[in-house]
Amino acid sequence: MGRSKRIESLIENVINMLYIIKIGGNIVDNVVHLEKCLELVSKIKGPKIIVHGGGKVATELAKTLKISQTIVEGRRITDTETLKIAVMVYAGLINKQIVAQLQSLDVHSIGLCGADANSILSIKRPIKTIDYGWVGDINSVNDTFVTQLLDQGMTPVFAPISHDGKGQLLNVNADTIAAHLAMALCKTTPVHLIYCFEKKGVLQDIDNEDSFIPRIDTQMSQDLIVNGQIHSGMLPKIRNIFDTLNQGVQAVSLGHALELQKIIQGQSGTKFEL
Amino acid sequence: MGRSKRIESLIENVINMLYIIKIGGNIVDNVVHLEKCLELVSKIKGPKIIVHGGGKVATELAKTLKISQTIVEGRRITDTETLKIAVMVYAGLINKQIVAQLQSLDVHSIGLCGADANSILSIKRPIKTIDYGWVGDINSVNDTFVTQLLDQGMTPVFAPISHDGKGQLLNVNADTIAAHLAMALCKTTPVHLIYCFEKKGVLQDIDNEDSFIPRIDTQMSQDLIVNGQIHSGMLPKIRNIFDTLNQGVQAVSLGHALELQKIIQGQSGTKFEL
Repeated sequence: MGRSKRIESLIENVINMLYIIKIGGNIVDNVVHLEKCLELVSKIKGPKIIVHGGGKVATELAKTLKISQTIVEGRRITDTETLKIAVMVYAGLINKQIVAQLQSLDVHSIGLCGADANSILSIKRPIKTIDYGWVGDINSVNDTFVTQLLDQGMTPVFAPISHDGKGQLLNVNADTIAAHLAMALCKTTPVHLIYCFEKKGVLQDIDNEDSFIPRIDTQMSQDLIVNGQIHSGMLPKIRNIFDTLNQGVQAVSLGHALELQKIIQGQSGTKFEL
Repeated sequence: MGRSKRIESLIENVINMLYIIKIGGNIVDNVVHLEKCLELVSKIKGPKIIVHGGGKVATELAKTLKISQTIVEGRRITDTETLKIAVMVYAGLINKQIVAQLQSLDVHSIGLCGADANSILSIKRPIKTIDYGWVGDINSVNDTFVTQLLDQGMTPVFAPISHDGKGQLLNVNADTIAAHLAMALCKTTPVHLIYCFEKKGVLQDIDNEDSFIPRIDTQMSQDLIVNGQIHSGMLPKIRNIFDTLNQGVQAVSLGHALELQKIIQGQSGTKFEL
């Protein structure tokens, strides 16, 4: 570790950084990887929040139940039956399994969807060209409540489900939930937002897992987009990351779920900065 | 309303009674009844806790997924696949739909299973003659946490799912959860435990819905058991109710979910006393 990174890591420990860790769907799908990732989470001292993605369980359940899935421009349309499945699998099965596992690791966790304590309020996405169905865009985060939980030593675990305050549950993207939590909470406490998935970061060479780019700043991100190295699904993700940084989030990283400790220490993953 | 009942009702309001309301499975299954019941809940001022049963959705989902259900001595055996369904439907779909609906009624609710904040810790039921599978017997209630939520003006909504603290989720009877919450919380605050279901109380005449017995004390309950008026499924329920009263719970009532207000005012339902 270089001197500047070491100092940065020390600063993070000293100032009691809040870690917001998004665990991607492919990790959630892999029992062994999820278990290892949660073990790494349990080793982080101080405040932390987990946001988990959905994974394939919902898609498989829909298939078994013969509920047809409509995909428009790469996005799943959430009809009433699909929403029910999402709520069952995300806010039920996955969320509670993660909470039970964290409890066994002495992490005092609590599972939440956005309706719980009105923690994340959304509005149904307005219909422009596409009707996404029961999909929500985040309106506000109940940062008072989330801060109270953190102050009580708890680790909130968020499922990617929200509500509209009028009794309707809504499907919300997990990355977006993590970003909004980070943006809301960074006003009062320094936040390091970490997107954990099955790759080591933004790769220089797609065929070389270890070619992750350690740091990307605004200029470099623009160059990578122009060069075509950041493209398709990664494009909105990177734009969101810079939006988050511009809103005052102290650090945003992207890396492999099994290298969470290394990401925090600046030894793995891609770290984004303005 | 007689004078003594009126005074009792007044006392309940004055001393800020905590209402623990168990909503039975048949009410959960009926969209209209559930909605009306939650509206009545929203009219109760002061602290309240909801515990909801499972209903038929889980059984129907298991049927559709062709997961065979084993019933031994009237009790469902919870194998691994059945537990997954229970967690999805109870802690996921039903719990979050109730929370979202309560939020729309300005009840600041939060959905929980026993794993969340270790609110209800259980042990897997020991195998004697029957192996019930992933069924839990309650060990302890995190009354500190539940009290904190109530002090913050929140209404906890409990699903009948718990955990063993070692990472295993467990299926737990909703009546038992309500009783244990009542017994734990009555040490610090007066508790009125209300079992809401689809009948008006313990009926004198099974064919006459309005023949509910307004009050049952210990002696009377024994007479009703000897006479055969309390039998089969109602028998353990009544025994549990008297156990709860013996543990210091101030009041226990049983009545129709759509008469919640009347039950509280002593105008409907069966009220149990020592």
